[in-house]
Amino acid sequence: MKRKKQAIGVFDSGVGGLTVFKEIRKKFPYEDIIYFGDTARVPYGPKSKNTVIDYSIQNTRFLIQEDVKMVVIACNTSSAVSLNVLKKMFDIPILGVIEPGAMNAVKVSKNNKIGVIGTEGTIRSEAYTKTIHNINPDVIIYSKACPLFVSLAEEGWANHPITRDIIKEYLEDFKTKNIDTLVLGCTHYPILKTAIQEFMGNEVNLVDSATSILSDIESVLKNGENIEKGKDLFFVSDNEEKFCKIAQDILDIKNFTLSKVKLGETWYVDRL
Amino acid sequence: MKRKKQAIGVFDSGVGGLTVFKEIRKKFPYEDIIYFGDTARVPYGPKSKNTVIDYSIQNTRFLIQEDVKMVVIACNTSSAVSLNVLKKMFDIPILGVIEPGAMNAVKVSKNNKIGVIGTEGTIRSEAYTKTIHNINPDVIIYSKACPLFVSLAEEGWANHPITRDIIKEYLEDFKTKNIDTLVLGCTHYPILKTAIQEFMGNEVNLVDSATSILSDIESVLKNGENIEKGKDLFFVSDNEEKFCKIAQDILDIKNFTLSKVKLGETWYVDRL
Repeated sequence: MKRKKQAIGVFDSGVGGLTVFKEIRKKFPYEDIIYFGDTARVPYGPKSKNTVIDYSIQNTRFLIQEDVKMVVIACNTSSAVSLNVLKKMFDIPILGVIEPGAMNAVKVSKNNKIGVIGTEGTIRSEAYTKTIHNINPDVIIYSKACPLFVSLAEEGWANHPITRDIIKEYLEDFKTKNIDTLVLGCTHYPILKTAIQEFMGNEVNLVDSATSILSDIESVLKNGENIEKGKDLFFVSDNEEKFCKIAQDILDIKNFTLSKVKLGETWYVDRL
Repeated sequence: MKRKKQAIGVFDSGVGGLTVFKEIRKKFPYEDIIYFGDTARVPYGPKSKNTVIDYSIQNTRFLIQEDVKMVVIACNTSSAVSLNVLKKMFDIPILGVIEPGAMNAVKVSKNNKIGVIGTEGTIRSEAYTKTIHNINPDVIIYSKACPLFVSLAEEGWANHPITRDIIKEYLEDFKTKNIDTLVLGCTHYPILKTAIQEFMGNEVNLVDSATSILSDIESVLKNGENIEKGKDLFFVSDNEEKFCKIAQDILDIKNFTLSKVKLGETWYVDRL
C-alpha cells in the first residue's frame, strides 16, 4: 500500500508492543506508524528460537510490503533471537529493544547489580546478559523467566491479589541480591509495572523497553516536513475485537484503522 | 508415509491431548497411533473461531497425509468450533471430545446440575451447553472460562499453592450452585485434576475428555489382527525437547519416535 510518506513499522507477538507504540507515537507525532500484532500465533515467549526467527522474518516482510522505512521489533523474545538475522536479510534499519534496554539499565544502576526478567525465550538466549556485559563486564546480573506474567497481563489481572502472589513467587530471590535496577525484559510487563514496583520497593529502578528505544529511532529518522499529523495503521493476524479493546485501553484512542492479515504462502491482507 | 496398518490420528494444540492419547493407547494396545501437537501455535483457547478452524484443517490434512483411518480431535477448543467443518471436508471419521464428554456428564449427574469449564473459545462457542441440552433440555448448566489453567499446567504448577488460589478464584461460584458434576472441558485440565477435586469436594464428579471418547473410537474401529503391538508416532510443530519431557512425564514411556513438522504452503516434515 502506498502512502504519502514511508512509515515506522512496529511488530510484536500481540498486544504487548502497544506499550512501545504508545511511546513512539508520543515522541514522533508527525510520523506514520504501522503496527502489526501476530495475535494468531501469540505468545512467542515459550517457542523455540527457530520458530520465532521464522515468524519474525514473515512479520518483517509484511511490514516492508506495507512500505515502511524502518522496523522496530517491539518484542523482547523476537529481538533476542532474530535481530541479527533480520539485519542481514533486509536493507532497511531494523531496531530491537534489547540493546537500548541494556544501555539504559547500565546507565541508571549505581551499584552495578541488575536484575532481568523476561520470557523463557529471552532469558534462555542470554541476550541481556551478553549485551550488558559488552557495555560493562563488571555488572552482576541476576535473571529469571516469568512466563505467567504474560497470561496475567492478557487476563487483565494487573491489580489482582493473585498477581501480587505470583510476583512474590518469581521475584522474591531478587530481594536478597541488593539489585538497584530491574529490566522489564518483555513488552507485556509494563502492564504489571505498578504491582512490580510495589513489591520491589521504590529504591529499585524499573527499566522498560518502551522508553529505552526512542533515541535509537530518533537517530535513524531524517528530518521530515512536520506539517501533517502522523497516521496510525494497525494490523493483526487474529482477534480484531479483543485487540481493539486492549488497544483502546492502552492507547486511550477511540478510532483507528485496523485490518486483519492471514498467513498463506506470504502474509496477505483481508481489509476490514 | 506408508505403514503396514492405518493409524488412529490424534491432534491437539500442544501437550494437553496427551491425556487423551494415553487413554487411547491403554484401551487399544494393537493400534498404531499418530499424535500431532501444534506447539508452534499453541494455545488455541484464546484464538478466534476462524483461526482455530484453519489450524484444525491443516492439522487434519497433515494426519491424513501420514495415513490415518480416523482423526480424533483431542482438543476441546478445536472440537467445539471445527468438528462440523472437518466432518464435511474429509471422508474419514472425525471424532471430537465435546459430545462424549457431554453424554458422560448427563449420565453421571443425579441432580441435573452440571458445571462446565474450558478455554475462552470453548465456552464462547457454547458447544457443551448446546450438546447437553440436545441430550436433556432439563439440565441446568453453569459454565466458565478458566484461561489461566492452561498456563499453570504448562508451567508445571499442578500442586503449587498459587494454583489452589486460582482454582478458588475461578470455581468459587460453582460451590453455591449445588452442581454434582463438573466437566473438565479442556484436555489440559486433567493435569490439575487433584487440586480441582480437592477444592470441589469428593461429592462432585469430574468428567474429562480422555476417558469419555473411548467408546466413540471403539464404535468406529473394525476388528483388526491383534498380533503386533501398536506403534506410537509423535509429531510437533515446535519445541521437541520440551514436548519430550512432558510426554515422558504424562505417558511414562522413555523411547518414542518424534519428528518436527513445519508449516509451509502445507505442513511438511523435517525428520529428526
